[in-house]
Amino acid sequence: MRHMSSTRVRMTPDSRREQLLALGVQLFATRSLEDLSIETLAEEAGISRGLLYHYFGNKQAFHTAVVQRASDDLYRVTAPSGEGGALEQLAGSLARYVDYVAENYQGYVSLVRGAAGGHEGLRQIYDESRAALTDRLFEGPLAEEAAALGLTDTPPVRLIVRGWASFTEEVVLEWVRESRGISRDELLEMLAASLPGILAPMRAQDS
Amino acid sequence: MRHMSSTRVRMTPDSRREQLLALGVQLFATRSLEDLSIETLAEEAGISRGLLYHYFGNKQAFHTAVVQRASDDLYRVTAPSGEGGALEQLAGSLARYVDYVAENYQGYVSLVRGAAGGHEGLRQIYDESRAALTDRLFEGPLAEEAAALGLTDTPPVRLIVRGWASFTEEVVLEWVRESRGISRDELLEMLAASLPGILAPMRAQDS
Repeated sequence: MRHMSSTRVRMTPDSRREQLLALGVQLFATRSLEDLSIETLAEEAGISRGLLYHYFGNKQAFHTAVVQRASDDLYRVTAPSGEGGALEQLAGSLARYVDYVAENYQGYVSLVRGAAGGHEGLRQIYDESRAALTDRLFEGPLAEEAAALGLTDTPPVRLIVRGWASFTEEVVLEWVRESRGISRDELLEMLAASLPGILAPMRAQDS
Repeated sequence: MRHMSSTRVRMTPDSRREQLLALGVQLFATRSLEDLSIETLAEEAGISRGLLYHYFGNKQAFHTAVVQRASDDLYRVTAPSGEGGALEQLAGSLARYVDYVAENYQGYVSLVRGAAGGHEGLRQIYDESRAALTDRLFEGPLAEEAAALGLTDTPPVRLIVRGWASFTEEVVLEWVRESRGISRDELLEMLAASLPGILAPMRAQDS
């Protein structure tokens, strides 16, 4: 540990790695994966590249660790509150999703592009993250209220929810890129109404 | 032209290029861009690679030409009929979109991934193609009936339609990949109802 002159207290390797990973995620918010190098992290952390390779193995493993952590953060911050009706909880989660994307725009865009572009490691994290986010609509506190949104756990509804996740991602990324005079409140109202709206024709069919 | 022993009639260079491009697009239906090489085309067309380089320049230019032609085809086959109500015309266009994606799945997936993955040439063609497809909802024969769908040409509605295009693409690609017991008719019904459904909350707001 004597290499790390910037460390004031003695840390375990695990907590040191945690600290470096948190810094990586922070850097990832404002730059793409391409621009997130071990060199950048070494410079920001004030430690040697060699030590970073010791903690993360190689660049790809470092990227995977950062993206996994960022996805975990997104999952955590968008957790439904468990209080109030389904639409209220959905609106709250969506608000925190919008703010997360706005604050981590560069990294988030590069994750979406990297995953869509066929980078297998990123794709897996991205797919699992999206599945975890949408599974919440069918399980847990929000799901208890989900009938109000027209959410029944059937293959057609699952397929629609998957498409709705793409809708939401596209709308939010575009809005952050260029708001078109649409306020955050207007955006949130549109997003919260879109899922019940897109499911409404199916509910009409069932009844 | 004497190199092309398989050509029975004398063709102009332009029409020969057209013929080769059509063959390229046909091959693209069942393979990704990565697997669509000048070599494959030369083999299928029974002509020399050298001649293909003469017609298309290089591999990237060949890919761009194929993808542009495929996008033009998609635009043409999904043209609204101009007959019947807006929902009927939308349903017709969507049915032809679904069939196109099903018939050209491998190539279409690789286009979407390549464009999303930051390949600039593909991205431009993809973006223009998507813009042209969705512009139809605001212009031309379908637009005359579009009020019935809640389509007013405002920034929020444009943003929603952009997201809806992502919704539709995701749902159709997923359905073609794995139908989950959902029939083509059920899928088409879901897709046709999704746009009015997603716009309905905004119309309620306006009235």
